[in-house]
Amino acid sequence: MIKVGIVGTGMISELFAEGAKFVEGMEVVAIQSRDEMKAKEFAKKHKVELTFTDYEGMLKDVRIDAVYIGLPNSLHFEYACKALSAKKITILEKPFLSNLKELDALIDISEETRTMVFEMNRVLCLPNTHVIRDHLEDIAPVRMITMNFSQYSRKYNDLLAGKTPNVFSDEFSGGALVDLGVYGVHLMVDLFGMPNNITYIASQLPNSIDISGNLTLTYDGFLASLVQSKNSRCDNRITIQGEKGTIYASPTASRIDTVILDVGEKKDITVTHEYESMTYTLKEIVRVINEKDEETYRKQLKQIRNVLEVLCAARQSAGIKFTADQK
Amino acid sequence: MIKVGIVGTGMISELFAEGAKFVEGMEVVAIQSRDEMKAKEFAKKHKVELTFTDYEGMLKDVRIDAVYIGLPNSLHFEYACKALSAKKITILEKPFLSNLKELDALIDISEETRTMVFEMNRVLCLPNTHVIRDHLEDIAPVRMITMNFSQYSRKYNDLLAGKTPNVFSDEFSGGALVDLGVYGVHLMVDLFGMPNNITYIASQLPNSIDISGNLTLTYDGFLASLVQSKNSRCDNRITIQGEKGTIYASPTASRIDTVILDVGEKKDITVTHEYESMTYTLKEIVRVINEKDEETYRKQLKQIRNVLEVLCAARQSAGIKFTADQK
Repeated sequence: MIKVGIVGTGMISELFAEGAKFVEGMEVVAIQSRDEMKAKEFAKKHKVELTFTDYEGMLKDVRIDAVYIGLPNSLHFEYACKALSAKKITILEKPFLSNLKELDALIDISEETRTMVFEMNRVLCLPNTHVIRDHLEDIAPVRMITMNFSQYSRKYNDLLAGKTPNVFSDEFSGGALVDLGVYGVHLMVDLFGMPNNITYIASQLPNSIDISGNLTLTYDGFLASLVQSKNSRCDNRITIQGEKGTIYASPTASRIDTVILDVGEKKDITVTHEYESMTYTLKEIVRVINEKDEETYRKQLKQIRNVLEVLCAARQSAGIKFTADQK
Repeated sequence: MIKVGIVGTGMISELFAEGAKFVEGMEVVAIQSRDEMKAKEFAKKHKVELTFTDYEGMLKDVRIDAVYIGLPNSLHFEYACKALSAKKITILEKPFLSNLKELDALIDISEETRTMVFEMNRVLCLPNTHVIRDHLEDIAPVRMITMNFSQYSRKYNDLLAGKTPNVFSDEFSGGALVDLGVYGVHLMVDLFGMPNNITYIASQLPNSIDISGNLTLTYDGFLASLVQSKNSRCDNRITIQGEKGTIYASPTASRIDTVILDVGEKKDITVTHEYESMTYTLKEIVRVINEKDEETYRKQLKQIRNVLEVLCAARQSAGIKFTADQK
């Protein structure tokens, strides 16, 4: 049994606690928050045994095997380094880290302490993602890909009121690309590998952070346009256009609700998802840990690195600067 | 009655002849083709009185007031110059011309001979385009626009077989942007004016011509991604995302089949099109001519120039070179 301590009591941690309930071999046993009341409330709501106000205290506790870090983006690095140093298996929410320097440093600690680190990437393990993967051959060769991940941010009104919520902050490594675009980048890198060229054009705040943008990834013989927006919304759509046909998918944040294959006529090839998205990823993480599946683990780390490379190149292309880059 | 001579017997000329049948005040009276058989067949099929094999012959004929030029793109300039010099009102198929040098020269002739020149731009006069225009306020401010105009070319197999059809030729000023992207550019310029920045990233043939691409137009506070592909297809879609809601439209080449307004819940605001797309544009052309509506005419010329400016800047951004640019 992998016993997990959750860091942070935000909405994402709630989703984690819910998602973990359906994962055999994993149990949420602890919650950490500097705010004791919040920790206790969370513990009560999700039937979690242990509460901590002190992160270091949780890391020292031998009853905990792993931590899940659902904190603002720029805090991922520090918290993950500490967890890995304490030999706790670490699950980091997406986006994994701010930049490649952080990744290199984190991987070094992970290798030294022989402790595994995972990304809570919800999109790659979804059954409907496998469906897309399995049907690419039917429409091959691919000639154009468009993805739109737009979600009107709950924090946008705060921004309009003159505040800078974490998700729009350079200090907290925010922005539309790392928050929403990351789903499309993960899919592209998983399905098609690394692009030849990366161009990101964005609507940017004075602090350089992107509130929306259009990321073009070019490959041999085709290109992809990944659009994301945090100040407007639409029925999100993935369209993979090939010479022989087209695949349409409807993603909502980290789910894929429908997959339609059109090779002359439209066919619904959706599979019904049994669980919420986090559950699929957690089941795979548990499998990799228990089976000591080094090959998959290495592949996942490579995917994480590739995605971060694309995100960093895209940010550079648009001139988006995180405070974390200057450290 | 404006008596029109059609130049060229291709599919587009067939559409023109069909579309003109519903236009009061306009009549197709002549067809010109170097191939006499083709001219006669066309004349018989569409009940056209006069046939010409010689373009100059048709231009000299006093029974003809106007010409419609439905030839490969790079021939537009030469044929339109001759028509305007002969004081024939000229209707040019889209894309209007290859570049701004051609436009300046053509406008000079048009002013000298006091003869009007129009673009057969099918998208701007559509009733459903007016519907979109009228509902922008409901979703304002606009924050993200995506358009996808993809159409698998009937000539793509020729290209794969090693030939270079006109539509993929630098000599004939071809490519996905000027052929399909032009619809989206016309809409953007009409609805939002000139963009601040223009970036085109394309999949290009060895002759530099784009077979597909992603055009990003940036405006104050939002941007637009215009995707076009001639070697794949999809359900074409226009999405205009605002802070207060979203407008979806389904265009097929030069029609707009549905318009959906979503400001909390989805509402179908489509109007049924009574005619095919060319008819609407021709009715407006006849109105402008008959009412001597100089203001609308000047506005149209400005729109044509702006669109051509965007197309040329986009081509320059991607390195797409037409033979016509070197003249």
